[in-house]
Amino acid sequence: MKNIISIQGFLGSFHHTVALEYFGKEVTLLERENFDKVFEDIENGRAEYGIIAIENTIYGSLYQNYDLLLDHELSIVGEHFLRIEHNLIGFPGQKLSDIHEVSSHPVALAQCSNFLKESGLKAVETNDTAGFIKKISEEKILNVAGIASEFAAKLYGMEIYKRGVEDDLSNFTRFLIISKKDHVVESANKTSIMIELKDKAGALASVINIFADNLVNLVKIESRPIAGKPWNYRFFIDYELDTNSQKGKELLLKLREKTSSLKILGSYKNKIPYQII
Amino acid sequence: MKNIISIQGFLGSFHHTVALEYFGKEVTLLERENFDKVFEDIENGRAEYGIIAIENTIYGSLYQNYDLLLDHELSIVGEHFLRIEHNLIGFPGQKLSDIHEVSSHPVALAQCSNFLKESGLKAVETNDTAGFIKKISEEKILNVAGIASEFAAKLYGMEIYKRGVEDDLSNFTRFLIISKKDHVVESANKTSIMIELKDKAGALASVINIFADNLVNLVKIESRPIAGKPWNYRFFIDYELDTNSQKGKELLLKLREKTSSLKILGSYKNKIPYQII
Repeated sequence: MKNIISIQGFLGSFHHTVALEYFGKEVTLLERENFDKVFEDIENGRAEYGIIAIENTIYGSLYQNYDLLLDHELSIVGEHFLRIEHNLIGFPGQKLSDIHEVSSHPVALAQCSNFLKESGLKAVETNDTAGFIKKISEEKILNVAGIASEFAAKLYGMEIYKRGVEDDLSNFTRFLIISKKDHVVESANKTSIMIELKDKAGALASVINIFADNLVNLVKIESRPIAGKPWNYRFFIDYELDTNSQKGKELLLKLREKTSSLKILGSYKNKIPYQII
Repeated sequence: MKNIISIQGFLGSFHHTVALEYFGKEVTLLERENFDKVFEDIENGRAEYGIIAIENTIYGSLYQNYDLLLDHELSIVGEHFLRIEHNLIGFPGQKLSDIHEVSSHPVALAQCSNFLKESGLKAVETNDTAGFIKKISEEKILNVAGIASEFAAKLYGMEIYKRGVEDDLSNFTRFLIISKKDHVVESANKTSIMIELKDKAGALASVINIFADNLVNLVKIESRPIAGKPWNYRFFIDYELDTNSQKGKELLLKLREKTSSLKILGSYKNKIPYQII
């Protein structure tokens, strides 16, 4: 399974681009129809690494993947970010006016909502961006376009009718690289954890202050409801410190004191220019 | 427009139940196909109040409605919470085994994911829970069921094939009552705001500490990406204090000092038994 990478989506997907940029060309890819299967591939030893989108700068976080990180005993071992450019792609030889329907992943459709509204094209959800371009190519589908990367258009020999149909040009997606728990990352400088707060006033402040008091930069905090505990939230926190360093271990002890539950999701190298909070 | 309430969805929807429980029976309802239209109704003076779902204890927050609150100059003037029981509902006289497809709102389908998986029924998204029950009734649709409240089944004379098909019994939805900005709420004790942080380390801690130092209970904090500013987040915060009280005004001054942007979304009566954070 060395150098076998499990990705959500088909060849030509944004996950495929991340695989090439992060690991280079000497990899074997497993194309999976959903994120659950990517997690299973690593757990069952079919793949060494998995690649999962975790947040997009327009759409927000993919909570489903946060939930999967909680449900599985795997580790985040890296991250990568990608500028997402969406293109309207269809079978060659048609005009833009020939297209009356667009099919793509719901997140991609959401990122192109202005274009879809203005064009009046009917939007239909499907489970992959590149997968639909592949389908157009294989089944010679006419009058229906997909929304996907230029890479997907090239790979399947399809035509780009309109470039850059996303709402906002600062459209980036952050991807996580996941692997087995025993995987050690050299010179990690960022950690992701999940915490649940103790049941008392000021519980969140006392946790946030541990970071401030120890001069550890917070880079992200995200709340999610806890199913079965109405109006209770868990928090996903990213901070700039390796949890395996001495300081990282000390910080963790302090955090455990002030929380009712804490799970380390992984320590890895920070790759994106963050806003520190 | 006195006593005219604009709701998302059709008669029999959960929003309709909230209207009855919150305002009593002496109201006129405007049934709207989406949340945008509810906001427009109040802005244009067609309705005095609007009712919008804002968070569900299983699904999480409805970010679209947080975005609409930012985009419009309206106020939250109240909240209400409802236990959500979902039922499989269809045209009378069929057996459960006659049903091969289920149609409902995506949030309702997501809340019943275990039942849908186990039953193997094909799930199809539609834009309203009760609206589809109405459609089944009017068009005498067979072999396809909806997922909606018992109220919807009764209102349209349809049959419940299976009760309580939601994944988790502690399934509650919190609804907001919105109205014009000049609306004053007597004895409000809870405020919702949106803030954007200053660009420096410890910015979140300094905001959270204002609440802790002034013994004001935080009850919710939620982060959302800011479109156009990659890896920057805004925070939606709920706390237990009337922003129009003396202490509320003082707190706001302190918050404005430590934030780059602050918008008051409304002060209203706290109706739900919170976990204080």
